[in-house]
Amino acid sequence: MKFKEKLYKYSELIIKKGLNIKEGDILVIRSQVKNIDFVNILAEIAFKEGASDVKINFRDENFSKLRYEYVSEDVLKDIPQHFVDEQNYYMDKKAKFLSLTGEDPNLFKDIDSEKLKISMIANSTALKSFSDKMMNNETSWCVAGAAVSSWAKVVFPDLSEDEAVDKLWDLIFYTSRTDSEDPVKEWEKHISDLKKRSAFLNESKFALFEIKSDNGTDLKLKMPKNYFFAGAEDTNAAGETFIANIPTEEVFSMPHKLGVDGIVYNTKPLNLNGSIVDDFFLKFADGKVVDFHAEVGYEVLKNLLDTDEGAKRLGEIAFVPYDSPISNTNVMFYNTLYDENASCHLALGKAYPSSIKGGDKLSAEELEALGANDSLVHVDFMIGDKSTNIWGYTEDGEKIQIFKDGNFII
Amino acid sequence: MKFKEKLYKYSELIIKKGLNIKEGDILVIRSQVKNIDFVNILAEIAFKEGASDVKINFRDENFSKLRYEYVSEDVLKDIPQHFVDEQNYYMDKKAKFLSLTGEDPNLFKDIDSEKLKISMIANSTALKSFSDKMMNNETSWCVAGAAVSSWAKVVFPDLSEDEAVDKLWDLIFYTSRTDSEDPVKEWEKHISDLKKRSAFLNESKFALFEIKSDNGTDLKLKMPKNYFFAGAEDTNAAGETFIANIPTEEVFSMPHKLGVDGIVYNTKPLNLNGSIVDDFFLKFADGKVVDFHAEVGYEVLKNLLDTDEGAKRLGEIAFVPYDSPISNTNVMFYNTLYDENASCHLALGKAYPSSIKGGDKLSAEELEALGANDSLVHVDFMIGDKSTNIWGYTEDGEKIQIFKDGNFII
Repeated sequence: MKFKEKLYKYSELIIKKGLNIKEGDILVIRSQVKNIDFVNILAEIAFKEGASDVKINFRDENFSKLRYEYVSEDVLKDIPQHFVDEQNYYMDKKAKFLSLTGEDPNLFKDIDSEKLKISMIANSTALKSFSDKMMNNETSWCVAGAAVSSWAKVVFPDLSEDEAVDKLWDLIFYTSRTDSEDPVKEWEKHISDLKKRSAFLNESKFALFEIKSDNGTDLKLKMPKNYFFAGAEDTNAAGETFIANIPTEEVFSMPHKLGVDGIVYNTKPLNLNGSIVDDFFLKFADGKVVDFHAEVGYEVLKNLLDTDEGAKRLGEIAFVPYDSPISNTNVMFYNTLYDENASCHLALGKAYPSSIKGGDKLSAEELEALGANDSLVHVDFMIGDKSTNIWGYTEDGEKIQIFKDGNFII
Repeated sequence: MKFKEKLYKYSELIIKKGLNIKEGDILVIRSQVKNIDFVNILAEIAFKEGASDVKINFRDENFSKLRYEYVSEDVLKDIPQHFVDEQNYYMDKKAKFLSLTGEDPNLFKDIDSEKLKISMIANSTALKSFSDKMMNNETSWCVAGAAVSSWAKVVFPDLSEDEAVDKLWDLIFYTSRTDSEDPVKEWEKHISDLKKRSAFLNESKFALFEIKSDNGTDLKLKMPKNYFFAGAEDTNAAGETFIANIPTEEVFSMPHKLGVDGIVYNTKPLNLNGSIVDDFFLKFADGKVVDFHAEVGYEVLKNLLDTDEGAKRLGEIAFVPYDSPISNTNVMFYNTLYDENASCHLALGKAYPSSIKGGDKLSAEELEALGANDSLVHVDFMIGDKSTNIWGYTEDGEKIQIFKDGNFII
């Protein structure tokens, strides 16, 4: 298949299966300006599927960096109301949201971390209601990758720019299963496989998971009552299925926000909005980070943890086998969408309400009472490697190994 | 000079002289996504001049076309409030507005003209207050060109795409006087020259202009009391100078909205928001179009005239010598910024309040009483050629020739 064909198949997968665009839907695409040709392909497919309108929110990473360099903290703090209104306008219309990820992983390396923190908090605060609805799957959303040269050059530093971009696209197609004859059929099988894993974990009603790796990770995570593992496919408030991440290899749920104890070391660098955090550990007691360190990006990690009370607690636990397509590429993507789907991971910050059975119908207070964490942030970080062993403890104390040497054994 | 140097000089001219960006100013840039590298140069210069923030409103011509093809008239009619709020937010903050022009002149050739009309009216109506403030120079604004391949290929159909783009950039630099040693100095001389022309026209207090060309144009335009000709440089409400068009070769004012009689033929094709209108005439009686025809783009012209009452009347008269830099390139740009500055022109629709002495301080009612036209639109069209003769009639009946064979003789 030629590049154009692959790109078209990938686009079709995103629009038809990822977002499940139907007659009358509005599609909102967030993208770097560099992806304009790809965005137009996506938009045309959406229109052909019956979308009533497509709105594109463009950004440019070079401009974002330039702006951080020059604008004052006061400007960063000030989020105009019309910007918030715009997001809420599309959420109220149940628009379906596509976010194309792919940036220079070191974009904000030289930007004052205080500025990044102020901007992140201002944005997250202004858009809290919007993000809560998104995380509660009130409408369909999808995050998918798009290769840009600034990203590709970091992933493949030894290749020429063009070669690096081509190779990154190839991996995007491979990991999203779009280089097969019938990607939609492949995805149906994949979804079915992940559902079987989720079903096992849900039926087992584990009260606690224990995670150990050779790097020193030794963590116990209590699970909330009625926890729910999901994978690949989500369902929005109108009952339509969608795939929030393309690619996805995980099954995920939430730990109890008060029930995490022990220490965990990262196994892959974390690209936190354009800043790399690496070689770090987090030490938990009663669910809360009580000690931490990072060899790379300490300030960025510190600012993340300082965002709010919930940023120091976990909102997600996700299992990904070491022997899985993305992991087997042996490529470090420096992009969470890809790296988190190559490794068991946790997330600091807000939990998805869907990680509790019927959670999408519960109030914030009800969710909290059940142990669901809330925060302005939700940041996945990778903790799995080929030495990772995981055990589940049932309510009556039975210990069942579910991961051995990095892989599911269930 | 290399391309990069020229582009930088051009950018400096736009930011420093065109918009006169000063400490604390907000800059809003409207641009096609394709111009992103140029936009970042402009933004960086603005920040260096002290801009407190830069906001970019991106558009993409291919997406605009795609959207017109698919969305319904109802969607086009519906302008979300947050969009209007955004424009007003920046106007209220006295942001300075840069618009980069340059598109495929035939972009919307195959789009239903009814859709284009509906969209134009919906947008112009929603943004009427914003546009009125802009046309009243409440803040600084500037329109400047940026070469994109879709445009360049129409201007230079016999060249390769790369050659066409290079050549168009060269012309943009040449016509904007940025390929000289000191463009700012060149512009100061140019502004001074145009001010002398304006001063003559203002001091002469002509009551009426008569325009004749060999193509059949025979038009009389009564001038309002206290008309004011301006050229090149404008002044915003805060007293800062700016250049609304780069390039600019015109001196312009307004005719009395009730005082236009005769017939006028276009001399260059008119690119009306992505549709070409050509080989057309307009016949006026008492200021109003009473007959018209166009060999090319009849429907588009008809829809323009049907926009509102004011769209059938004139809001601008502008004099440009046939022997002038843009005209001498002998290039048809199919872009009004360039073509209107290569030819005497008129505009259908709203008049600039500044075309009346002290007009920026007058109410809409006061302006109307003086003969200033109002409309949702303001569309320049080219009527001058090398055969154009123009006479001014003073209030006591003296007839003075001001244009002979296409050129000023004053």
